[in-house]
Amino acid sequence: MAANINGQSLIFNNRPGILGYGIIAGPAEGKGLLGNKFDLIYEDARCGEKTWELGEMKMVKKAIDYSLSRANVDRNDINILLGGDLLNQIIVSNFTARSFSIPFLGLYGACSTFIEVLLVGSLLVDGKYADKILGYSSSHYQTAERQFRTPLEYGDQYPPTKQWTITGAGAYVMAENGGEVVITHATIGKVIDLGVNDSNDMGSAMAPAAADTILQHFSDLQRGPQDYDLIITGDLGRVGRDVLNTLLQEKNCDISEKLKDCGAIILNDEKKYGSGGSGCAASALGIGSVFIPELIAGNINRILVVGTGALMSPLTLNQNETIPAIAHAVVIERS
Amino acid sequence: MAANINGQSLIFNNRPGILGYGIIAGPAEGKGLLGNKFDLIYEDARCGEKTWELGEMKMVKKAIDYSLSRANVDRNDINILLGGDLLNQIIVSNFTARSFSIPFLGLYGACSTFIEVLLVGSLLVDGKYADKILGYSSSHYQTAERQFRTPLEYGDQYPPTKQWTITGAGAYVMAENGGEVVITHATIGKVIDLGVNDSNDMGSAMAPAAADTILQHFSDLQRGPQDYDLIITGDLGRVGRDVLNTLLQEKNCDISEKLKDCGAIILNDEKKYGSGGSGCAASALGIGSVFIPELIAGNINRILVVGTGALMSPLTLNQNETIPAIAHAVVIERS
Repeated sequence: MAANINGQSLIFNNRPGILGYGIIAGPAEGKGLLGNKFDLIYEDARCGEKTWELGEMKMVKKAIDYSLSRANVDRNDINILLGGDLLNQIIVSNFTARSFSIPFLGLYGACSTFIEVLLVGSLLVDGKYADKILGYSSSHYQTAERQFRTPLEYGDQYPPTKQWTITGAGAYVMAENGGEVVITHATIGKVIDLGVNDSNDMGSAMAPAAADTILQHFSDLQRGPQDYDLIITGDLGRVGRDVLNTLLQEKNCDISEKLKDCGAIILNDEKKYGSGGSGCAASALGIGSVFIPELIAGNINRILVVGTGALMSPLTLNQNETIPAIAHAVVIERS
Repeated sequence: MAANINGQSLIFNNRPGILGYGIIAGPAEGKGLLGNKFDLIYEDARCGEKTWELGEMKMVKKAIDYSLSRANVDRNDINILLGGDLLNQIIVSNFTARSFSIPFLGLYGACSTFIEVLLVGSLLVDGKYADKILGYSSSHYQTAERQFRTPLEYGDQYPPTKQWTITGAGAYVMAENGGEVVITHATIGKVIDLGVNDSNDMGSAMAPAAADTILQHFSDLQRGPQDYDLIITGDLGRVGRDVLNTLLQEKNCDISEKLKDCGAIILNDEKKYGSGGSGCAASALGIGSVFIPELIAGNINRILVVGTGALMSPLTLNQNETIPAIAHAVVIERS
């Protein structure tokens, strides 16, 4: 076996650091529990632009500005940009990269994309293929809803399992040296499909992938829940979080005391937002606003962050396919 | 600067090898100049399935079968799958990965995706994050045309600059040791947009990105056209190939004697296919059918393969955006 992989888990011996990050939120997110922890909140989901898509791009650019400033890094010192989002042909990420004269790699893992960005970024830094990486990801209620579901004007009903796509963007600067928090391991997920076909219940579709990746992670590294202060999922929502707990308990693994879901924390008004928030931005905003600050403050020492993605498209749903899902994980700890 | 990057170019000191590959083509491609060089040709673009999308997935699975068999590798020995395609949410790649119990990373770089797959695969093997990688990519005239342009039934006209999306799939097995050909370097491209907005002239939109990456590659590695037996683009078509030659000649760099374009070779009937073939499959089929065999036979020793991608979506075109493009490159040589 190659030196830096064990099972599905990569080992980053050089411990790539997170030097800084920027987290930008939309209006609903700004009114939520974490509203005072974001770098910037737009009261207008278009951010003053002509279209929602241009608004989402503006949020990414702002997130990048904040991340470079917090990391105290000049954009000319970034070797590689990594990005991905939910829109067809990841246009938000691609069009944002157009403003930078920096090599770019596009990634897609649906709502798991932000964790895929951290994973590939860690790989590049750990393997000495880059000094500094800037990774970003975003999602947006209005741009996602009309692409994946129905035009907003249609006034679709909100069942309790449905999730609300988080409007926001996160950008993270990674480098070999200097971060107060570092990424030590990652686990790449398999595509898992247990036959869920309800696009209003993504949490249930994604929970089996999260369970599989978490169990695999523990097995690969001979670890268990006791080795982590918290285990954080990106956007399972309340429904998916409960399914995950049940699935793991069936395998004699209890993480319920340590499990937090970013989507459910960011948008916690059940009546308005169903099961909670979803989207690539959920984990980007969640770990930047709450969990990395807690690590830096020394309140916690090591977390496992699991990003989940539902890999269907409107076309596959129309063709009566079920919903495959994936979960990638990274370990973040104090340096 | 980190040890394994110079400018935009990555250096793979462990020389990851291509152990085997599988290349599957559709009906038009099978009737072209390279028809006798593919592993399998489907006369029916649906491959006997109910939809074109299922047909495209079947082609990818067949390509994987051929690649494992030619590499003499068991699928259980693959550490990581890498894949990407043109369809929204890269459904072909994601749904194919569902059939394998192997970790998966999704990539998106439009028609440059196949080269991005080789690049990330090389990185994983070279950095000892994987023993064996299986990377795949695909494109399909019928699935792409109705997504990006108009329903086929509409009978849209074919201007001479327009390209025909190649129907086909390629899968490549990569490993640290054992290949007759190896990947020694890669250059990651920047997103370049010179303002082209004609979705029927992708070659002209992508040529500036190819020029930028090629010049950067030469500068990073202190090389020039004389260091390569051939320089191969994925799918610029005849029009884009000529634009690339002109752009480089303006910079005092003449590659015209060495330049081949996979799309233009695979579909060479100008009346039927406009400027030539396009799509992720163009480079995957081109290098597997012609150029790797030439390397193995010893007729050539080193090639530079440049995959180009146009990063727009139907939505950005409708919103009057221009077309950003990207080009990634890998160096393949005899081991």
